[in-house]
Amino acid sequence: MGNRVVIIGGDAAGMTVAAALRRRLGEDDEVVVLERGGWTSYSACGIPYWISGEVRSADALVARTPEEHLKHGIDLRLGVEAVAIDPQARTVSVRDGDPVRYDRLVLATGAEPVRPDLPGIDGHGIHGVQSLDDGQVLIDALAQGPSRVVVVGSGYIGLEIAEACVERGFATTVVERGAHPLPIVEAPLGEQIADGMRAHGIHLQTGAAVTGFALDDSGRVAAVQTEHETFPADLVVLGLGVTARSGLAADAGLPTGPKGGIVVDEHQRVDGFPDIWAAGDCVATLDRVTGELVHLPLGTHANKQGMVAADSIVADLLGEEPHLAFPGVVQTAITKFCSLEISRVGLGEQQARDAGFDLVVVTIETTNAAGYMPDPGMMTVLMVADRATRRLLGAQIVGSESSALRIDVAATALAAGMTVDEVVMLDLAYAPPFSSVWSPIQVAARAAVKALAAPRP
Amino acid sequence: MGNRVVIIGGDAAGMTVAAALRRRLGEDDEVVVLERGGWTSYSACGIPYWISGEVRSADALVARTPEEHLKHGIDLRLGVEAVAIDPQARTVSVRDGDPVRYDRLVLATGAEPVRPDLPGIDGHGIHGVQSLDDGQVLIDALAQGPSRVVVVGSGYIGLEIAEACVERGFATTVVERGAHPLPIVEAPLGEQIADGMRAHGIHLQTGAAVTGFALDDSGRVAAVQTEHETFPADLVVLGLGVTARSGLAADAGLPTGPKGGIVVDEHQRVDGFPDIWAAGDCVATLDRVTGELVHLPLGTHANKQGMVAADSIVADLLGEEPHLAFPGVVQTAITKFCSLEISRVGLGEQQARDAGFDLVVVTIETTNAAGYMPDPGMMTVLMVADRATRRLLGAQIVGSESSALRIDVAATALAAGMTVDEVVMLDLAYAPPFSSVWSPIQVAARAAVKALAAPRP
Repeated sequence: MGNRVVIIGGDAAGMTVAAALRRRLGEDDEVVVLERGGWTSYSACGIPYWISGEVRSADALVARTPEEHLKHGIDLRLGVEAVAIDPQARTVSVRDGDPVRYDRLVLATGAEPVRPDLPGIDGHGIHGVQSLDDGQVLIDALAQGPSRVVVVGSGYIGLEIAEACVERGFATTVVERGAHPLPIVEAPLGEQIADGMRAHGIHLQTGAAVTGFALDDSGRVAAVQTEHETFPADLVVLGLGVTARSGLAADAGLPTGPKGGIVVDEHQRVDGFPDIWAAGDCVATLDRVTGELVHLPLGTHANKQGMVAADSIVADLLGEEPHLAFPGVVQTAITKFCSLEISRVGLGEQQARDAGFDLVVVTIETTNAAGYMPDPGMMTVLMVADRATRRLLGAQIVGSESSALRIDVAATALAAGMTVDEVVMLDLAYAPPFSSVWSPIQVAARAAVKALAAPRP
Repeated sequence: MGNRVVIIGGDAAGMTVAAALRRRLGEDDEVVVLERGGWTSYSACGIPYWISGEVRSADALVARTPEEHLKHGIDLRLGVEAVAIDPQARTVSVRDGDPVRYDRLVLATGAEPVRPDLPGIDGHGIHGVQSLDDGQVLIDALAQGPSRVVVVGSGYIGLEIAEACVERGFATTVVERGAHPLPIVEAPLGEQIADGMRAHGIHLQTGAAVTGFALDDSGRVAAVQTEHETFPADLVVLGLGVTARSGLAADAGLPTGPKGGIVVDEHQRVDGFPDIWAAGDCVATLDRVTGELVHLPLGTHANKQGMVAADSIVADLLGEEPHLAFPGVVQTAITKFCSLEISRVGLGEQQARDAGFDLVVVTIETTNAAGYMPDPGMMTVLMVADRATRRLLGAQIVGSESSALRIDVAATALAAGMTVDEVVMLDLAYAPPFSSVWSPIQVAARAAVKALAAPRP
């Protein structure tokens, strides 16, 4: 008789695990997926482009439909919501149904938008955007022709939604608590993004923490309130980030870390629970630069962690050693906002100080083609390096087209633990249409080397 | 009394050494540059864009003029051709002048276009393109309105010149000895380039080794001859690559390696000649993947080697340890050809076999944006990995806009000696406008991992 692996959650991480297990386990083994919604394997990152109209339908964002998964022998159960897990009894309780027994369990429950406990937060017209269902609700709400959209928070989802709303012709305000938009980049780059937002017709209010939402008599949102100002709104989008959807895990006594992320080992196995794995937006991940746990919900990590969890489960069931390990993240992020490309990796200045590093920070301007080529685009690169070891700690980019992907050099160098001196000596691609003779990341690394040699300010 | 450092050659490597020495040596020390031409510090890589008209003048390609160098205290002597060096006497003989004494010598004599010893090679109208003077001669020749241009060889300079000629409206033929254009990439990618050339209106003849040049009565080229065919031509551009201009070094007994490249240590000091350094297109460099010497004349290496040589000379004069070392290259190259972007790094299939590796080679097609975004561009990635160590050995890319620079991930991974498994687990930038959830280099690395697991064919 075979084993039964139960997976809770049918998006990127969960279905990656399911598909990999189905390929590698025997016919007697069961792969059961409990998905409370009706969608599988979709790109949440694509939702802003669906809202803007660049992507035609939700279907386009689905990498693999439930029917395809079923056809591949996965016992996918849609509309089944897990409400409790019992690690001793090895069962999952579900709403309106019998408990589901498991031999091995995978938690792939994802993340949920932060909804701060503020007056009026439950008013009608206040939307989080995490799932395809959320996206459809928002699209339907926009179809009503709101007169004023307010986006609360300016992380990259907030920015992308704000751009989509402006593209569709809605008066759009972004309210950000911090001093500049996109808090994952430093101030000099954030100011450029602020300029870009205003140039694009977005009303931006920084330094404004939301204190509540005014509702009209029907319970519908009428305004977003901050300490000093009130922003009329008939549609609000929350872009305040997400936390791990790990209540189920926490209730069962599983360990959780930053933003509720479930704590797992490098094989995605839950610490202290040898029959349970977790992967994707619901887990905490290792930051390769600091060695600390962070919560970084991204499809790229979900896919890798799904592969790793499946490999580990197969090894466990067969009594073998696993082949794969998830090495952690370097906090890489990228987005396109209007005509600006933005990316970052590793530690920002404050993050690096908080982690105890004695550091240098440099900011350079350079072109993304040889300076003599017609109309070379401009980009700004910020770099953080450690004084003690000369190691690269982080980099951030804001610039025109062909700028942001250059962050991948820094992401790879961070994974390898390179010093800024080693980055200067990398053999990076050069031809006049692509960069000056020093690649932008190397221009920044040279500035960092110079800063390391200068007397401490 | 100070030291005198003499540098032969006033382009990228030579002037980088000169400027760095001038900043770090004392006022008593002399920095003398002997440049046989009239230009300094120019971008030879920009010449094709000058010929196409995208760059307006040769002046735009000059990063720093002779006047600027003179102003910075460099004793720059233009029009002075070194004809011999005497390492024992520590002198450089020059044409039409007294010998120049040195305490330390730097050879930065660059490279020269290959001019095969074929019948008619010295005919009028057969051009190499290496210096700004060459570029001016070619521009003047094109201004005469040639009726048929033939480019011999299809390395990246050949391709770029061919594109420039077609852009300017000249009937252009490229004659290539190999089976596909751009021999630095493998056949499947070369075929795409061939298609691109033909679509752009270039007549391409592959498998055609040039046997000679027919000249008319006035000694002017009339046709390019191959074994099977004759291509009428009134203007010929040689795109057959370059060799190190190292005759001066070889005559003085200095060691030379592949394509005449002067053999130096990691501080750019010439092996066995403690008072002589060499940098730039005239040296052989270490390939970081194989540990073998190669000749890779590129401005990026010239700049780094110039920095390293200057650092080593200063350390030598001051009796200190040098700070810098040139770690070698990974054979990174990139170009843009019509609407195609092309790049490569590390070892190609045959190079890897020649170096004794037992390898897997994979080729994948992927998009350079999420598949659901409107009109995502396509790209092909070829990857070579070592069976024994699972290390990445090389990668090549051909694709539409935003494809080629992704090679820098592989260049950085090669420098770090990463396995393809490690490449799969890199935290690379992902958002729908930039790639699918797996970055193109990782799509190829996953295919390599799969190939490594498959039974040997």
